[in-house]
Amino acid sequence: MVTGVHVAGIGMTPFGKFPQRGLEDLGLAAVLAAVDDAGLHQREIQAVYAGHARTGRLLGRENGVGQLVMAAAGVRGIPVTGVGNFCASGSTAFREAVLAVMTGLYDVVLALGVEKLSVRPEKGKPLTSDGMEFEGEFGFTPPAFFALVAKSYLAEIGADAADLAHVAVKNRAHAQHNPYAQYRDPISAEEVLTSRMIADPLTLLSCCPTGDGAAAALVVSDRVAARLDRKTVRVGATALLSGCGDPTATGHFEVDTRAARVAYEQAGIGPEDIDVAEVHDAFTVTEVIHYEDLLLCPPGEGVKYLLDGRTSLGGQIPVSTSGGLMSKGHPLGATGIAQVHEIVTQLRGEAGPRQVAGASTGLTHCAGGFLDNDVAVSAVHLFSV
Amino acid sequence: MVTGVHVAGIGMTPFGKFPQRGLEDLGLAAVLAAVDDAGLHQREIQAVYAGHARTGRLLGRENGVGQLVMAAAGVRGIPVTGVGNFCASGSTAFREAVLAVMTGLYDVVLALGVEKLSVRPEKGKPLTSDGMEFEGEFGFTPPAFFALVAKSYLAEIGADAADLAHVAVKNRAHAQHNPYAQYRDPISAEEVLTSRMIADPLTLLSCCPTGDGAAAALVVSDRVAARLDRKTVRVGATALLSGCGDPTATGHFEVDTRAARVAYEQAGIGPEDIDVAEVHDAFTVTEVIHYEDLLLCPPGEGVKYLLDGRTSLGGQIPVSTSGGLMSKGHPLGATGIAQVHEIVTQLRGEAGPRQVAGASTGLTHCAGGFLDNDVAVSAVHLFSV
Repeated sequence: MVTGVHVAGIGMTPFGKFPQRGLEDLGLAAVLAAVDDAGLHQREIQAVYAGHARTGRLLGRENGVGQLVMAAAGVRGIPVTGVGNFCASGSTAFREAVLAVMTGLYDVVLALGVEKLSVRPEKGKPLTSDGMEFEGEFGFTPPAFFALVAKSYLAEIGADAADLAHVAVKNRAHAQHNPYAQYRDPISAEEVLTSRMIADPLTLLSCCPTGDGAAAALVVSDRVAARLDRKTVRVGATALLSGCGDPTATGHFEVDTRAARVAYEQAGIGPEDIDVAEVHDAFTVTEVIHYEDLLLCPPGEGVKYLLDGRTSLGGQIPVSTSGGLMSKGHPLGATGIAQVHEIVTQLRGEAGPRQVAGASTGLTHCAGGFLDNDVAVSAVHLFSV
Repeated sequence: MVTGVHVAGIGMTPFGKFPQRGLEDLGLAAVLAAVDDAGLHQREIQAVYAGHARTGRLLGRENGVGQLVMAAAGVRGIPVTGVGNFCASGSTAFREAVLAVMTGLYDVVLALGVEKLSVRPEKGKPLTSDGMEFEGEFGFTPPAFFALVAKSYLAEIGADAADLAHVAVKNRAHAQHNPYAQYRDPISAEEVLTSRMIADPLTLLSCCPTGDGAAAALVVSDRVAARLDRKTVRVGATALLSGCGDPTATGHFEVDTRAARVAYEQAGIGPEDIDVAEVHDAFTVTEVIHYEDLLLCPPGEGVKYLLDGRTSLGGQIPVSTSGGLMSKGHPLGATGIAQVHEIVTQLRGEAGPRQVAGASTGLTHCAGGFLDNDVAVSAVHLFSV
């Protein structure tokens, strides 16, 4: 059970392609926004977990990213741990910050996520997943993998690519109200379907973009939460699981269902209690599968929930109100903490035109490391006010 | 304060250059040895922290190393977090395992460290530190940095390179009794001084070697420790600090002294209580500086302690009984956990010919990230029986 842990402050940069901004610059902006939001000073941070997934291979910086950012903030002499877990690196950093507060050793811990994907060290070489260079040469990249998943899933439920396009449309509609989102101009299902084919049935607008960005969350103990003027948000669960199931065979992510069950049990709530969720919508198809695998809808009803508008703003359980990975963007290490940013914003009732009325319980879900099922990871966090 | 956390099992591979062995193979051997040592089964492991510092840049594997090793051990479906912190990556993974047990969420957590340095992706290119490619082109590599530190330190205390050579001689003498050590043939001070000059005053045999290897430690709660037949070792402190002080200017590591003070305070003991220590002897000079900076000897008396034999086996406070980084080897991510391996072996009284008689309190110290003082890190752990 997770108790006595709160998010007291959040901050992030807009996501996008920023050739002139480095990791320190992006990270610093997120950290300063988070401490300002909490009404704390950065010197009150007692420990840091920094999530990043590709800074070593893309920028020659496999270690020390968190330290660089903290030095830029004028903070030295505290523990800083670098955390990597594929696309769930930010979620994992957040989780470790939660655990650090639970130990009782620290009252104010920073979870930081930062990534810069708009650079590539060697022009012309594909940006492959870890350990997949060989397969990458043959085109077995993430879109190809998730296209296989899509084929399995669509065959199972008897839906088609035209149905899936509505995920992109919905998330772009949400993103127009989020100033941090990488893409904010509304799109139509027609545009999604006729955009360039990447891996059938996934077109360009069926895939999330790459980009740069940073996000930060200040995780605090009961003691600090009690003395802050700021409304804080309780962390109810932190679940992380790796390596189970083959989604290309089943069209489902067993690792997600297992992580979700762990999270619901930790928090003592069920999926029916969730008011708003940010899921790992790296591709249109994955969002609807996640509805099912995170138990947010009955088996086989993912597409139905989507088409009925139940997961749109104003629906029963709005998903990806931030625009999601599809439109807000997906700078790997920052993504999981940006999800926390959105859910905290919603639960504080500060989401403006994209506010989910009366939201009091939220879920974040990040996944990664697919292509090799042994390393695939799922992270689920639950929040409440 | 750290309480209720124990090391129940340890395992490691020999350190050396093993072109035929991959990360999974090395890691698996360490994990199986650790669970066997504890009298547990790998399926009883509830969470994993995997430390590695260069697997991304050298092997294209920045994420998922821990998952690969666990899958090789037949364990899937548990949380696995990748941890990076330069040469202290293994120590940091160990620390996070300790914190995870302290949360009360887990009773059996694995700290794993693995690295493979005997491969280089692009022949002819220097193996530079993170973020130091530019400086590396001009020869500002770790030996050059620590040569500057050595100059400052030797000038301060009025000692010379011939004095420092005795660190290499001592640690090699210790290593001859350690079957896991990379180099075990005794060497003389003359050999150390006349070996190839790397960066004045540091000769080849004044520097630790590069190599491959893995180490694992099972960290358990009171509840599990109580039911095991195996003698367990208590973890008394875990201190991690980043980014303070410039050792080239002072000949000292302020970050180490600050980390050591945090650790002694956590454990409620002083340096005078330490019976045996493993320090980060990446270079001869750093070992003697560490005596001083970790407060194991009075200021200015590091070389005196060395030459008087106080830090040799049979002396007042034997240091690097495993052979240290100098002779046991330094596969970055594995190093910190291999230090835990040695201290646990000593405190259980199982070190054979290199046993420190009656040792009941031990210290490990790993550092890294120098060259850029903003990111430099120090990790100090204390253990007792």
